[in-house]
Amino acid sequence: MSPTPRSDLLFPAEPTQRALARELYALAKDQPIISPHGHVDPLILADDAPFPDPARLIIVPDHYVTRMLLSQGVPPADLGVPTVDGRPVETDGRTIWRRFAAHWHLFRGTPSRLWLERTFTEVFGVGTALSPETADEVYDAIAARLAEPEFRPRALFERFNIEVLATTESPLDDLGRHAKLAADGWGGPGGRVITTFRPDNVVDMEFEGWADNVARLGEITGADTGTYRGYLAALRDRRQAFIAAGATSSDHGHPTALTLALSEAEATALFERGLRGTADAADAEAFRAHMLLEFARMSIEDGLVMQLHPGSVRNHNRWLYETHGRDVGGDIPQATEYLHALTPLLDAYGNDPRLRVVVYTLDEYTFTRELAPLAGGYAALYLGAPWWFLDSPEVLRRFRESVTETAGFYNTAGFVDDTRAFCSIPVRHDVARRIDAGFLARLVAEDRLPLSEAAETIVDLAYRLPKKIFKIGERL
Amino acid sequence: MSPTPRSDLLFPAEPTQRALARELYALAKDQPIISPHGHVDPLILADDAPFPDPARLIIVPDHYVTRMLLSQGVPPADLGVPTVDGRPVETDGRTIWRRFAAHWHLFRGTPSRLWLERTFTEVFGVGTALSPETADEVYDAIAARLAEPEFRPRALFERFNIEVLATTESPLDDLGRHAKLAADGWGGPGGRVITTFRPDNVVDMEFEGWADNVARLGEITGADTGTYRGYLAALRDRRQAFIAAGATSSDHGHPTALTLALSEAEATALFERGLRGTADAADAEAFRAHMLLEFARMSIEDGLVMQLHPGSVRNHNRWLYETHGRDVGGDIPQATEYLHALTPLLDAYGNDPRLRVVVYTLDEYTFTRELAPLAGGYAALYLGAPWWFLDSPEVLRRFRESVTETAGFYNTAGFVDDTRAFCSIPVRHDVARRIDAGFLARLVAEDRLPLSEAAETIVDLAYRLPKKIFKIGERL
Amino acid sequence: MSPTPRSDLLFPAEPTQRALARELYALAKDQPIISPHGHVDPLILADDAPFPDPARLIIVPDHYVTRMLLSQGVPPADLGVPTVDGRPVETDGRTIWRRFAAHWHLFRGTPSRLWLERTFTEVFGVGTALSPETADEVYDAIAARLAEPEFRPRALFERFNIEVLATTESPLDDLGRHAKLAADGWGGPGGRVITTFRPDNVVDMEFEGWADNVARLGEITGADTGTYRGYLAALRDRRQAFIAAGATSSDHGHPTALTLALSEAEATALFERGLRGTADAADAEAFRAHMLLEFARMSIEDGLVMQLHPGSVRNHNRWLYETHGRDVGGDIPQATEYLHALTPLLDAYGNDPRLRVVVYTLDEYTFTRELAPLAGGYAALYLGAPWWFLDSPEVLRRFRESVTETAGFYNTAGFVDDTRAFCSIPVRHDVARRIDAGFLARLVAEDRLPLSEAAETIVDLAYRLPKKIFKIGERL
Repeated sequence: MSPTPRSDLLFPAEPTQRALARELYALAKDQPIISPHGHVDPLILADDAPFPDPARLIIVPDHYVTRMLLSQGVPPADLGVPTVDGRPVETDGRTIWRRFAAHWHLFRGTPSRLWLERTFTEVFGVGTALSPETADEVYDAIAARLAEPEFRPRALFERFNIEVLATTESPLDDLGRHAKLAADGWGGPGGRVITTFRPDNVVDMEFEGWADNVARLGEITGADTGTYRGYLAALRDRRQAFIAAGATSSDHGHPTALTLALSEAEATALFERGLRGTADAADAEAFRAHMLLEFARMSIEDGLVMQLHPGSVRNHNRWLYETHGRDVGGDIPQATEYLHALTPLLDAYGNDPRLRVVVYTLDEYTFTRELAPLAGGYAALYLGAPWWFLDSPEVLRRFRESVTETAGFYNTAGFVDDTRAFCSIPVRHDVARRIDAGFLARLVAEDRLPLSEAAETIVDLAYRLPKKIFKIGERL
Repeated sequence: MSPTPRSDLLFPAEPTQRALARELYALAKDQPIISPHGHVDPLILADDAPFPDPARLIIVPDHYVTRMLLSQGVPPADLGVPTVDGRPVETDGRTIWRRFAAHWHLFRGTPSRLWLERTFTEVFGVGTALSPETADEVYDAIAARLAEPEFRPRALFERFNIEVLATTESPLDDLGRHAKLAADGWGGPGGRVITTFRPDNVVDMEFEGWADNVARLGEITGADTGTYRGYLAALRDRRQAFIAAGATSSDHGHPTALTLALSEAEATALFERGLRGTADAADAEAFRAHMLLEFARMSIEDGLVMQLHPGSVRNHNRWLYETHGRDVGGDIPQATEYLHALTPLLDAYGNDPRLRVVVYTLDEYTFTRELAPLAGGYAALYLGAPWWFLDSPEVLRRFRESVTETAGFYNTAGFVDDTRAFCSIPVRHDVARRIDAGFLARLVAEDRLPLSEAAETIVDLAYRLPKKIFKIGERL
Repeated sequence: MSPTPRSDLLFPAEPTQRALARELYALAKDQPIISPHGHVDPLILADDAPFPDPARLIIVPDHYVTRMLLSQGVPPADLGVPTVDGRPVETDGRTIWRRFAAHWHLFRGTPSRLWLERTFTEVFGVGTALSPETADEVYDAIAARLAEPEFRPRALFERFNIEVLATTESPLDDLGRHAKLAADGWGGPGGRVITTFRPDNVVDMEFEGWADNVARLGEITGADTGTYRGYLAALRDRRQAFIAAGATSSDHGHPTALTLALSEAEATALFERGLRGTADAADAEAFRAHMLLEFARMSIEDGLVMQLHPGSVRNHNRWLYETHGRDVGGDIPQATEYLHALTPLLDAYGNDPRLRVVVYTLDEYTFTRELAPLAGGYAALYLGAPWWFLDSPEVLRRFRESVTETAGFYNTAGFVDDTRAFCSIPVRHDVARRIDAGFLARLVAEDRLPLSEAAETIVDLAYRLPKKIFKIGERL
């Protein structure tokens, strides 16, 4: 059974708008994918080895999936999620897949459902609808495809029409995978696969092993990271290395959006308390906040676009964290204040066109109140796409309905997939393009925008804006 | 004039979605009503006496109605709302009804309008549209019906197709009305009318007469409620009595969602300060918060589902409270934080499948940020239906549009009417079914869900889910 | 090229609703404009002089426009916005206009786009679509019109079908422009152009020159404003002068909605600290909060409707403020709490029908949680139209979708344009009428309201309600 095209997926049902959405989407559909922020392991593309079995590829690493099943009482271990103490977990791919398929109804109405379904049909050409009964059939069909050379990562990259994919690395990463990619003609400045400078594990004193990480940063760079000045020098040094590996942006995942403009003496004192192990939570928060000012200064120097991802309470599900570690679905958003939090940064550099800060949110209840007015009033500020729990058709639509009226389209930075699931990249971008097409179709249908301008806008949103704002293809 | 059927009420106007909504609603329409949470006085069904006049039945006790008229300057006394000091109020039903009808336009666009209108037409078969001019005609028509035996409470219960109705009682209630119901074959475990354990007046030190209530709890149970251990024993004892009267859940109405895991020594100290009358507001809040942990432990033991209703500032309208007392429309919602507030409870039992906590909200600006991620990430947590001010077509729709993408349908607990207005129960459930049908119709029309799965889902939402999650029909 | 009528602008695309929206809008379309709150300079109408060039009329003073261009790196000085230190800025109207036109795409999807476009077409009859290429053509066409007598302010006022326009003045204003208007038969009590009492610069200790302003208030009134009692007397005195100039309302722009009921001794102490220059930020906040109680008392005496505009962090963009001063686009909303903040005011006078308070918001995430329950539960409270960043089609719609179900239509105070851009007044009111028509059309299409009642409601919203609630045409 061959997959149906679902050509009207996510378009408004009302015929006038649907027709307009089709027309607008047709312009965006085949634009190359710019993926300026995500978490694909560069090794996948560096090695270009075949993917593992369907469960290990699609279920085990997808925390959207494993958390939903946990919420209905299925322990992550039963789905093959590794334990921190090495306690055994389910290892049989087919068993994992069957368990997942048995709970497929839980995903009705979720973006995971869309992403998975479209991955099955569009990427793997498997048209059989998943159900407990068809679990094996779908598993076998995908497994068969994964064995074929056209389903190797680089072949898929071409097929997915990805122009540029940015991965995310720590300053402690040796960037060896990116060097391999560059050697193969796939990486480096202006290349197809580039890196992103994500320094959280050497900035956030509450990160496990922070002091050791700072020490390693010193070893890698030869700077004396036992001093605050040496620490900053080491960070600058790594940024240059990242730029040499193609990076055009940095990324900062903080619990809040707080920024602070501390004196060097104050920052030094915090840094030293951190190294001595006497920093408390307030010190850690102040240091993170201050470092955003430092990184803004570095960005003005070296040109990296800053991304700020605030508002996630990491490891909220304590049992999950203790059993399975980080990044397995135990994080929950918290209310995020931007206006006062960003004031020090904006006071210092908000009107400086050399700085570019892309701000994301997990808290949609800031769209009209804070985010749109800030992005529509400061030269340095752009709004990132709805993120994580908010990367969904309904919220993508509400994002446009909420921020456009104050910030316009051109203070938004375009879609980012933010995913580690390489095979889901096309569908994620496709969903955003469809929702934008539907939103623009409504503007046209309500006589608020001529079709010609909507047509230009959809291509800007899908391709030109992210490329420009993230400096993709530019050499810093 | 016979009432028009209004068969498309609340369905999307767009024809494709409307046709789908009709088809889906048809599957849900005749499902029996599961009403796992509400405030109907069990005496109504125990006695099965005729209802009083239309004003006393429909206007006087409905704080949605009296508060709206108060907001336009009509004092509650003019509508017959009793005063705390016995100062006389309007007693003539017809006069009250005419005053209400004179302000009928205030309810345009409100759920009260829908509930009342449909109660008139569907329950009482009165098709004349209410207006100042028709006030008497409608009054007389309803009054005539109320005198007929088919309009006695039990007859209506049958006609309403209610499978199970849960009322809400304090631990100080002797459950005599439920005993009467059980004796008549209407109550008891697995029965048609069951109770719910609502201990606020013996838990919340800020409740009037708390210490006296605790003393009475001791008298009722024979436990020494002068000690914290005796107090817990008394609560356990009453829970068993409630379970014997059919209860499958407890309910907790707190100003915030705060939970705390105090030591026995700390809890004892708070309890004793409360009894001595030296507890301050912070003590009261800490004690309430801690008691949620105690009740969670009891739930794991005895199987009662926990309901948490946080976020109402009781008696905000001080004049109204001083003049007319509690529960007459003077409560207002406040911003409600869930993530940090629930952490102690979730750390302790959030992944324990033996616990089931249904959380409600008056603050819709937590749907995507906190509630959906929590319900979609913890095995013990379910989302209750939009509550009170939020129990309305627009919010029911926004609830699905907001929480489904992260929590799915199956972490929501189904509709609860939460009402004391017995005659409005069918229309309230009907509104929820219609909104769910419309939402699912959109998913189908936008090719996001096959009709077959939407069809299964609508029946789950209307009937199977609330029955299962609230353990209706189970014997604990 | 003559402008197209765009008769379906902003109506829902779905044909049933569109037809209903047309029908309802037709009833509201030609209702006279009641503009009970705005910032038009009364000099414009007192002098009735021709408007300046198109750039100076339309671009330079419009902070919606200049902030959007600033957000994309165009300095306000390049658009002619004056500097506080007199540093030169662009003065050539045509150059400014071309710069604006070059960035016209930034306004896609914004209300500014709608307001400007419709001002061009409807007010000036210029049908050429603006673009970088047509900039000069549009500029010249508007300039030509501005030279004609039919485009003088009073002629436009007639053409705009404005029944009453309220401007906003400080108590320090001598009301001379309003005296001139009265002398011409255009102003005074019950007149066409009236004033509004806006005392922020003599109430807010954080306002530049507050103490000097208080001293001047004493000079103007002859009261001893060196004492708190004299200060109150002076304010009462000016309110009488404003009432004599036609005022029916006061207006209070505060950073928060806080109210406080201080004793006279406490208020006196704060006032004296303010005059001595020793008041801190908390003192200033307490004094502002207390003064709202004083103004409520004065309103009960003299009948002025109180307007409260909380939630704007003024001059958030520090560079913009230092370079160009106040009111040039550097203000940003902050989260606004109403429930606890308004408690002292509501405890004192919330149920007093002699008081009327219209509350506005920049924080839509309070609509269902706080604002609708408050307005639907207190006799004194009304909800103002969505304000400033929220005065947009999407939010006007969400406002109705959110507040109607709890507060109904009749606790909302009707549209206010809040603008200094005189020529944009008709389109702003027209947008609100169109959105209300669309919302009511949906209620009718979903069988929630009969067309006859929707028809009455749309006229109430457009004309009768604002007139009644703001006491327009009444003599206080």
